Amino acid sequence: MSAVLITNIGELTTNVAAPGDPCGTLHDAAVLIEGDRIAWVGLAADAPRPDRTEIVDAGGRAVLPGFVDSHTHLVFGGDRAEEFEARMTGTPYAAGGIRRTVAATRAAGDDELRRRLAGFVAELHAQGTTTFEVKTGYGLTVRDEARLARLAAEVTPEVTFLGAHVVPAEYADRRDDYVELVCGAMLEACAPHSRWIDVFCERGAFAPDETRRILAAGIAHGLEARVHGNQLGEGEGVGIAVGLGAASVDHCTYLDDADIAALAGSETVATLLPGVEFSTRQPYPDARRLLDAGVTVAIASDCNPGSSFTSSMPLMIALAVREMGMTTAEAVWAATAGGARALRRDDVGAVAPGMRADLVLLEAPTRTHLAYRPGVPLIAGVFRGGSRL
Amino acid sequence: MSAVLITNIGELTTNVAAPGDPCGTLHDAAVLIEGDRIAWVGLAADAPRPDRTEIVDAGGRAVLPGFVDSHTHLVFGGDRAEEFEARMTGTPYAAGGIRRTVAATRAAGDDELRRRLAGFVAELHAQGTTTFEVKTGYGLTVRDEARLARLAAEVTPEVTFLGAHVVPAEYADRRDDYVELVCGAMLEACAPHSRWIDVFCERGAFAPDETRRILAAGIAHGLEARVHGNQLGEGEGVGIAVGLGAASVDHCTYLDDADIAALAGSETVATLLPGVEFSTRQPYPDARRLLDAGVTVAIASDCNPGSSFTSSMPLMIALAVREMGMTTAEAVWAATAGGARALRRDDVGAVAPGMRADLVLLEAPTRTHLAYRPGVPLIAGVFRGGSRL
Ligand SMILES: [Zn+2]
Ligand SMILES: [Zn+2]
Repeated sequence: MSAVLITNIGELTTNVAAPGDPCGTLHDAAVLIEGDRIAWVGLAADAPRPDRTEIVDAGGRAVLPGFVDSHTHLVFGGDRAEEFEARMTGTPYAAGGIRRTVAATRAAGDDELRRRLAGFVAELHAQGTTTFEVKTGYGLTVRDEARLARLAAEVTPEVTFLGAHVVPAEYADRRDDYVELVCGAMLEACAPHSRWIDVFCERGAFAPDETRRILAAGIAHGLEARVHGNQLGEGEGVGIAVGLGAASVDHCTYLDDADIAALAGSETVATLLPGVEFSTRQPYPDARRLLDAGVTVAIASDCNPGSSFTSSMPLMIALAVREMGMTTAEAVWAATAGGARALRRDDVGAVAPGMRADLVLLEAPTRTHLAYRPGVPLIAGVFRGGSRL
Repeated sequence: MSAVLITNIGELTTNVAAPGDPCGTLHDAAVLIEGDRIAWVGLAADAPRPDRTEIVDAGGRAVLPGFVDSHTHLVFGGDRAEEFEARMTGTPYAAGGIRRTVAATRAAGDDELRRRLAGFVAELHAQGTTTFEVKTGYGLTVRDEARLARLAAEVTPEVTFLGAHVVPAEYADRRDDYVELVCGAMLEACAPHSRWIDVFCERGAFAPDETRRILAAGIAHGLEARVHGNQLGEGEGVGIAVGLGAASVDHCTYLDDADIAALAGSETVATLLPGVEFSTRQPYPDARRLLDAGVTVAIASDCNPGSSFTSSMPLMIALAVREMGMTTAEAVWAATAGGARALRRDDVGAVAPGMRADLVLLEAPTRTHLAYRPGVPLIAGVFRGGSRL
């Protein structure tokens, strides 16, 4: 079995919580990788060096777990750069919205979508993301949703069936029929490729009763629930998610005290998506309030061509610190261990023996530099499953 | 002479102004490079192909001039990550400020500063910056300022003598003596390595009369003027800069109508530095107001360890669009042609025959993606002086 010892690590974020330090920070540390797993973690001076171990000298750099991006929409055709520009400049733009991407996605062949997806995966890896979720939701026919779920499953086990992204134009006058389809034939076709079911529960998308019905159908099919909720206004998204034991409720910008209390007493993660607020000029969610109440917080990119076409977890960390009241340590935890919790994964998001060997080396001495040096590509090296990417 | 034809360019930003399009945009374009210069620009279908021309297929990607970062402070020792974290979390932190970097810089040897500078240059190139200015200002002794100017001159012809960055601690009780030193022995020692002279004209730094005196001394020594002004409050910085025919006045957050009018009727560029506002949570300058008044606007990184430790011109573009009312085209122009104007350079910042062959290929079909995809490393290739970096 191949062994790699990363040594001379100036600051190692393990996420193995120590008193007062949820990041479990070690200095002058080393990590031994055997095969695809982490075999040993500790001080560099104590590191074992089995025969034929490759030595990687981190040169005092910071090392952290690979980022876990628990919320993306990466299977789609076309882009919406013109709509973005119009939104930023306050210019009317009629041709936008999710339905525009639906049309482009339906028109794209499998090979084109596969090629684009491969490009996004390369982009994620280059930015230190080693685990990511991908949602369907730009097909909105049985055939197209199943196609997107199948293509997504080629690149990640974390596939989410999001037939309930928006009611497609052709069902505008008969939304009940569309909900019926999502809960029936569409779910049937997508479930074999999916782990998760998700609903965009928001005014203008799916109502609370529709959300409950769709999630229940998915759960009955063996999928696990996650919810888009409380993005544009207060609503029942959080309550539904917690009530169903969903892994995560995502956005969480508009929360009342009952939502906070429900989250704090639950296993449901609040996943914040600051790329959306950056690219839509909406108010940022208040991470501080959630953290102070004891809620588990994740941050993710929501990478999608409409509201947040960034895949940069480092920028999400910088925005969490600039705009959402998080410390850098909290933001880094949320982008790694938090994402793992939001995906109910216990094999990623931390640096400890037995975990998958997913590690990021920064071109910086501390993780603080991810917020202190916004926009700078600081990823100096990435290991995923023990392999150097 | 080596020749390279970059062809199949989906969108080429030339900055050769066309009616209604200051970016001089061409589609399906090509650029011929001969030696270190651009030899030809036009439609791909019309491109000349001299013998032994290397062909680079841009694959429909966008191409633009290399970024011109007209404002950085890249020669320094240490960092101030802890001060940044304290500022973001509202925690008192006594040990911060420019003087902390001055102490670390004085303590650093030439080789260490040279090695760090080389790292920053590599970082700039990787992000598409092909021309950059570097200021002194962390030495504040004759010997150390001259050392910083000399080291900066090893990596760029655009060196700015900024002895008037802050009054050093040892002159706290006799600031007139420090101004005297800056205008005398320090200027004498730095002028041979410098093109520019700059003063931080702000309450708490240098007063208007001190600013005038120092700039006049520099001009008398053959240096050209630029000014840090109007960052933290209204003041005389803009008036002084315009009055002296300075190339640029930088920051420009707090401007009254007279400042705007003065800038609009001048050759002085207003250089905006949104990285500072991002990293200090200060209000952003109003680029729209400046542009609407006809002022020439540049954007730059102000990369420095205190208030803006980013070197990312793509992020500056995204912030200009998100926060300062600029269109993407205006922001891209400001980060290329605007920076060239701020450095009074006519050989960079545009793609036209005779210009230095500094080009950026984006991993994107349009320049809009620089704002639409914040934080994502979109630089797919960089040419500087005709050489691929
Ligand atoms: Zn989403
Ligand atoms: Zn500055």
